[in-house]
Amino acid sequence: MTVSDHKIKSRFVIPPYSAHCVDVLAGEELCIIDVEGRQVSDFICFNKDDMTEHVSPVHMRSSLSSLRLKVGDGLFSNRRDPLMTLVEDTVGKHDFFFPACDYYRYKVDFGVENHPNCHDNLVKALAGHGIRMDEIPDPINWFMNNDVDANGDYTIRDPLSRPGDYVRLRALKNCVVACTTCSQDFVPVNGMTVTPIELQVLA
Amino acid sequence: MTVSDHKIKSRFVIPPYSAHCVDVLAGEELCIIDVEGRQVSDFICFNKDDMTEHVSPVHMRSSLSSLRLKVGDGLFSNRRDPLMTLVEDTVGKHDFFFPACDYYRYKVDFGVENHPNCHDNLVKALAGHGIRMDEIPDPINWFMNNDVDANGDYTIRDPLSRPGDYVRLRALKNCVVACTTCSQDFVPVNGMTVTPIELQVLA
Repeated sequence: MTVSDHKIKSRFVIPPYSAHCVDVLAGEELCIIDVEGRQVSDFICFNKDDMTEHVSPVHMRSSLSSLRLKVGDGLFSNRRDPLMTLVEDTVGKHDFFFPACDYYRYKVDFGVENHPNCHDNLVKALAGHGIRMDEIPDPINWFMNNDVDANGDYTIRDPLSRPGDYVRLRALKNCVVACTTCSQDFVPVNGMTVTPIELQVLA
Repeated sequence: MTVSDHKIKSRFVIPPYSAHCVDVLAGEELCIIDVEGRQVSDFICFNKDDMTEHVSPVHMRSSLSSLRLKVGDGLFSNRRDPLMTLVEDTVGKHDFFFPACDYYRYKVDFGVENHPNCHDNLVKALAGHGIRMDEIPDPINWFMNNDVDANGDYTIRDPLSRPGDYVRLRALKNCVVACTTCSQDFVPVNGMTVTPIELQVLA
């Protein structure tokens, strides 16, 4: 499938329980496609020309005065400057207040050692960029469906995404992006089954 | 004032536009008192015996399945283990999804250079602990009143705290805590006036 008038420059299908890193240069677009539906993709993004600047959900929540993402929103950095813009979204429900799953998530919350996890997969995907374990920023969790009630408590539900649903992002600066296929198979965050995510870079 | 049966081991009044760092050892308590009311205090907390572990709002939101803080809640770390527990709260409305104000907040959002800010005040307060600029964790913003609507958008309102209101925290491990008097005077987060916060460590 092609989701934009832009030409596909590269495509990659991220297998379940893993992650992939890709450059998206200023003016290019990135499509993150939920191939089979109901699959979360944890997303982090660095300024390729200054890797100390990265998309920062906590600063996004301030700059957007919101806990939801809408088409037209900037993905603001830790310098409060947008690195990308959300230009198309066929789902409309994502998360940017929840952490990446990590060693401690499976160990502490589920008593399981050595479960695949988004944090470690992001570290591996970024191995060539000199990013340390403790430098992985908080993620945007595309397609994650946290249902917040009037009290501020929330429930993790199946994503609303169907096969082929996607988000499309436009890079405002030269970016290094890493995305996962979220490894969580103990709660319905991925519909209980981990499936592929396709990345398309559009020039 | 004394807010607990515990004995006061130390007390310190944080002046407006600054921050202070204090040890709170396992079993001790920390009271954070809003002296004049309507003043936010940004709070970060490290494990004194392993400064790579710190209270982490993004992991708290996962461990608590919530965006609100309740008496009895643990202040979970980046290892998903609580460093402190909230044992008393005379207000009931706080924030743990908003960032500390920083250089970029005043520069980008208000066009002001060199405004005092919580991030830099936390760095200064922790100067003796070898914590770098880019290692300041996200804060808990005690007394901050972000009013989230049904769409997930929110408005920053005056705190609900009146003079003398406080939270009381019990340390589960040996902790290094830094708290600010939030410097924000452009929006009503502190009722438009920055006032003192008192810290009491109770043994």
